[in-house]
Amino acid sequence: MSRPFNFSAGPSALPIDVLLQVRDELLDFAGTGVSVMEISHRSQPFMDFAHATDAAVRRVLAVPSDYHVLLLQGGSYLQFSQIPMNLFHKTNTADYIHTGLWSEQAANAARQYGIVRTIASSHETGFDRVPEINESHINLDAAYLHYTENETAQGLQFSKPPISSIPLVCDACSSLMSKPIDIAAHDLVYASAQKNMGIAGVTLVLLNPAILDKPLAATPQALDFSIQAKKQSLLNTPSTFSWYVMGLMMEWIERTGGIEVLHEINKKKSRHLYNVIDGSNGFYINHVLPDYRSINNVPFHISERNLEDLFVREAQENGFHGLKGHQSTGGLRASIYNAVTLDAVQELALFMREFARTHG
Amino acid sequence: MSRPFNFSAGPSALPIDVLLQVRDELLDFAGTGVSVMEISHRSQPFMDFAHATDAAVRRVLAVPSDYHVLLLQGGSYLQFSQIPMNLFHKTNTADYIHTGLWSEQAANAARQYGIVRTIASSHETGFDRVPEINESHINLDAAYLHYTENETAQGLQFSKPPISSIPLVCDACSSLMSKPIDIAAHDLVYASAQKNMGIAGVTLVLLNPAILDKPLAATPQALDFSIQAKKQSLLNTPSTFSWYVMGLMMEWIERTGGIEVLHEINKKKSRHLYNVIDGSNGFYINHVLPDYRSINNVPFHISERNLEDLFVREAQENGFHGLKGHQSTGGLRASIYNAVTLDAVQELALFMREFARTHG
Ligand SMILES: Cc1ncc(COP(=O)(O)O)c(C=O)c1O
Ligand SMILES: Cc1ncc(COP(=O)(O)O)c(C=O)c1O
Repeated sequence: MSRPFNFSAGPSALPIDVLLQVRDELLDFAGTGVSVMEISHRSQPFMDFAHATDAAVRRVLAVPSDYHVLLLQGGSYLQFSQIPMNLFHKTNTADYIHTGLWSEQAANAARQYGIVRTIASSHETGFDRVPEINESHINLDAAYLHYTENETAQGLQFSKPPISSIPLVCDACSSLMSKPIDIAAHDLVYASAQKNMGIAGVTLVLLNPAILDKPLAATPQALDFSIQAKKQSLLNTPSTFSWYVMGLMMEWIERTGGIEVLHEINKKKSRHLYNVIDGSNGFYINHVLPDYRSINNVPFHISERNLEDLFVREAQENGFHGLKGHQSTGGLRASIYNAVTLDAVQELALFMREFARTHG
Repeated sequence: MSRPFNFSAGPSALPIDVLLQVRDELLDFAGTGVSVMEISHRSQPFMDFAHATDAAVRRVLAVPSDYHVLLLQGGSYLQFSQIPMNLFHKTNTADYIHTGLWSEQAANAARQYGIVRTIASSHETGFDRVPEINESHINLDAAYLHYTENETAQGLQFSKPPISSIPLVCDACSSLMSKPIDIAAHDLVYASAQKNMGIAGVTLVLLNPAILDKPLAATPQALDFSIQAKKQSLLNTPSTFSWYVMGLMMEWIERTGGIEVLHEINKKKSRHLYNVIDGSNGFYINHVLPDYRSINNVPFHISERNLEDLFVREAQENGFHGLKGHQSTGGLRASIYNAVTLDAVQELALFMREFARTHG
């Protein structure tokens, strides 16, 4: 079966094994004779599946046993508001690190609920790096420090979590499950499923219960972490199909050998593309400093900008999908999440070399 | 193909045609070569599909052309909070009609944001009817009047919208698309898709823009109706697969002949079951007065309560799924939404008669 190579930034490629499994059991989930789409979220077969998914998430990510594992609706974008609504109880101020589009949007959303201080930014150098952060930057009266582990549009990534003496919150939307992240070093980690671990409709939130207290008075019940934790994320009907696909992805990740194995493959994939860019004599440009380049999203420009549309068109014709850059940055971008194979990346590298040769 | 008869209250049965279509095109959506789960919500194929779904919703429900059609995340439960957050701008009080579990939960959620007045209730008569409502009950200073068109647990349904001189808000979670509802007589109608029009993960909100103004200060952007309307429900990544299945259901509803045709079938289905109950010499009990009985959910008890577990077990063995009543009411319940066939209902009626004969 020959399928297009899919470099979409999210929703994004799924492993063919998972797609085939979904198709195979689409009319009969777990021997029920009906589709997983057709059963109650409170039915035994769904609850059993949900428990297995919870256990797999905990195993794969080494989640501390007292942490909550929540699967919520609304996307990471809703978390931008939900997090301050839940964590601004003793104080309504938080520290944010500014590394690009998504950390900026997260900070803007939090500003609605209190005082947001940007304690470090790489804006001045065009988001070419993760800014230096040390303890002296951190406001000890802040409820938490927020950072975006991987900037999906800028292609900028942390190599390790910032040191923090206050609760640490991580937007890992485009990197969770693609590399080891020390969950115990954080108090809250969140990620939508549609990049490295499934499809849209479910957002994973890993949460240290010690940081919870009464949320802001206006917090809807469905957005109250404590209530959702008590209800095992089943306060109301979740997007059950999205939950199901995430469960299958957890099985796939474990079959593949876990996150360390995926991390090695993901590093190799990104190296291929950065090598093409750096070896193109300036035809392709990625301006992120090597130490901070993302293994999940490889954004680039063509030095002659007017070739970019042609690149997208020719790529499409050759079976490479989803290579347009984010609307905020323009240019081009290859998202190479867990389900994008090394093979697909090698084919893209070949295509990029050939395109540079013909048009350079 | 012999499948179980699925009477689940939601998520619930889908038409076999829709299931087969989902399976057939699972790996190749609209000629893209990739799955609908794998493409961006901002890609042309998805946007085209979204526009077609919007048009179909407007056609099928005769939505006034200036109304917003929103497809949101979080379920109807989140709407319980989102609605007062958006509509409590000039005044923070609203009127609610109390007819059972769901209208009570909606009112409780709204109470967090202001003053909720229950202007009519059938609590005292055990939710056996829709209470009398006339203009004199309505508080003219209220932001809106809220009612639950169909009480999913109690099996109680309005035959027509209450008369209202203030904006009228309708929870049509378990009835939208199963019978004609005059959308123009309402200012806001909402329903999760997983009953009569798809799967969990997407909630349809039909909305008269005239009732919108600045929402409460703490309203997250993702929960702001005006912002979502401006963004065509694509502020952030929606549950794209749920959206897709709802689009297929719209096509199925139109192929079936539209809501009037479905309404006739649904009335016939419910009549079959109420006839069995009423003709059982008190073996089965449904205490809702005939004029108010739901065509979507038929709850019942067995006069000898200890036979109810046996009923569920024997039903299951005979291929009838999802017949346990809501946890709040206990007993039994057959949900007979659009996708449940007349055939399935006739088989259930036979089974119920036989069960009463053997155990009565
Ligand atoms: C880093 C990051 N954070 C947050 C989001 C928002 O996620 P969602 O669209 O699922 O709400 C995205 C989306 O791409 C992202 O890349
Ligand atoms: C009438 C009614 N309103 C609201 C809800 C809540 O819907 P959801 O679980 O999709 O949030 C339900 C769920 O069954 C319902 O039947």
